[in-house]
Amino acid sequence: MQIKSIEWADDSLVVIDQTQLPEKLIYLKIDTLDQLLEAIQKLKIRGAPLLGAAGAFGIYLGIRNSRADIYEINNLVRRSYDKVVSARPTAVNLKWGAEQAKEAAQNQVEIASIKKAALDKAIEITLDDFRRCESIGKNGSDLITEGGILTHCNTGALATCGIGTAFGVLWTAHRQGKKISVFAGETRPLLQGARLTAWECQQLGMPCTLITDNMAGMVMRKKLIHIVIVGADRIAKNGDVANKIGTYSLAVLAKQHQIPFYVAAPLSTFDFHCPDGESIPIEERDPDEVRGGFGKLTAPKDVNVFNPAFDVTPHEYITAFITEKGISKPPFQF
Amino acid sequence: MQIKSIEWADDSLVVIDQTQLPEKLIYLKIDTLDQLLEAIQKLKIRGAPLLGAAGAFGIYLGIRNSRADIYEINNLVRRSYDKVVSARPTAVNLKWGAEQAKEAAQNQVEIASIKKAALDKAIEITLDDFRRCESIGKNGSDLITEGGILTHCNTGALATCGIGTAFGVLWTAHRQGKKISVFAGETRPLLQGARLTAWECQQLGMPCTLITDNMAGMVMRKKLIHIVIVGADRIAKNGDVANKIGTYSLAVLAKQHQIPFYVAAPLSTFDFHCPDGESIPIEERDPDEVRGGFGKLTAPKDVNVFNPAFDVTPHEYITAFITEKGISKPPFQF
Repeated sequence: MQIKSIEWADDSLVVIDQTQLPEKLIYLKIDTLDQLLEAIQKLKIRGAPLLGAAGAFGIYLGIRNSRADIYEINNLVRRSYDKVVSARPTAVNLKWGAEQAKEAAQNQVEIASIKKAALDKAIEITLDDFRRCESIGKNGSDLITEGGILTHCNTGALATCGIGTAFGVLWTAHRQGKKISVFAGETRPLLQGARLTAWECQQLGMPCTLITDNMAGMVMRKKLIHIVIVGADRIAKNGDVANKIGTYSLAVLAKQHQIPFYVAAPLSTFDFHCPDGESIPIEERDPDEVRGGFGKLTAPKDVNVFNPAFDVTPHEYITAFITEKGISKPPFQF
Repeated sequence: MQIKSIEWADDSLVVIDQTQLPEKLIYLKIDTLDQLLEAIQKLKIRGAPLLGAAGAFGIYLGIRNSRADIYEINNLVRRSYDKVVSARPTAVNLKWGAEQAKEAAQNQVEIASIKKAALDKAIEITLDDFRRCESIGKNGSDLITEGGILTHCNTGALATCGIGTAFGVLWTAHRQGKKISVFAGETRPLLQGARLTAWECQQLGMPCTLITDNMAGMVMRKKLIHIVIVGADRIAKNGDVANKIGTYSLAVLAKQHQIPFYVAAPLSTFDFHCPDGESIPIEERDPDEVRGGFGKLTAPKDVNVFNPAFDVTPHEYITAFITEKGISKPPFQF
């Protein structure tokens, strides 16, 4: 089964409610901006590229049923944009997608074409991301023959508008008949590997073994892992990678066990204004994600917690980058 | 505050109900063998050395109120032993402690002295373990000056009859006025680091930061960690160490960052019949510990899981062993 986490169908936006996973697969039909904002705020929709598309659809949903005049509708575009952006202020892609649709709308002079331009842009962003994932998947699959592949966090259909980035490589290799077996690190504290990646593997019929993050060393030593492949949140000019916390530990362990360590990401993830990993700001998140989050408190309620959302993996640990344009091996020249 | 997880007081066994931690500190008064068996089965009492003492007390509790004759009381000793052992069949220390008390009782020929010998042996085992922890703590503290110290799982008062093994070293250094800061790895899947070690640090007023296991690499790279110290479940003749899953990953990360990696354990942990780590059998536990286990399901309910309880750290990653007899550095000669 293909997983479509976002789709424009029958004049509605249809998304998977990710907060119900892995227990239930529920599609939400979204017809208004308020419904979309609620879905974004409650993390029913998450994942950077997916939020980019959602942000663009937000502009259209904000104006589609309006009977305002041309002056008012332009105000409404701006107000919709502000609402989308403030739904999750730190989500860069959300803002980017909303901006794309806002600008497309603002280039029009008739009410009907303003609405159409916003919708067309949102659909275009969705399709672009879909195609980008396909290319990353095909390029990355060339690096894969068979064996155990460890991945981290969720980089699949639930995070993108297509098959995913790092996960898309696995899915492409599997579709091509390569005998791979996915090891999904659960990815504490928010367990995206356990909740989402393991679920996607099941939906797609890919062999998958769920492990806790601290088992990575052991499974490598037991020679169960032949490749590690992860996504990226931001890649600096020198090739240093910021990604979900735990990525750096995996990179060190992979190097120690002489296992290739690949990073799959669209070109838009490269930030050429950022010289190296030291310059990437690392967001710290709510300590309660570590203290609890499994349904009950699992640590003293006031214990001091360090909860960085990301870590930085220096470029010397990276065997190659996989992008929609191809494979990049060291020395990295960006 | 000193933590006493087991004590014979006012003719009762008093233990901490560890299933209530970290939310509530509740002492259980145990007066019968059935109460003890329930506490062991429900993991209200856990930790290898602590179970050794509990097992010995079980023999006494099984016979203390009996009015049987000398023949019957010897049968009762044996039946109590069988009950204790079958409460947790894989807990080696539980069996060992029960055996000690059983043999002490069986060496007596009068009813009163049979009862007294079982109780005396249980108290002796408790005190021996208390003193052993003190010695390990003192010996280990000589290796510590100041700084951040990462530990794994729970090796403190809640696992032993004293201050603990690896944790006892931290506590001793702290009591000696050394400026240390504990980093407690949460230790998935059962979160002993989060639930127990972080709680012990709070009770004792030791600075503590809780992290998820996958943050270990990042905190080392940020130079927040100056020493790693862990306990051991079994040490082979060549110095390979079986310990809680995740230990091996920490050892590799420590070596990569040139951080000393110490193993603190009583001499009874060394198994000279076991030539190396490859010969140590690794128990696999219930997959549901990884899929959920803290009040809600956090992975697909039927996803394949690998859940080894322990991993093996080869001796070449170990800077030194800390035992009650002193420090042992490579080349290890056991």
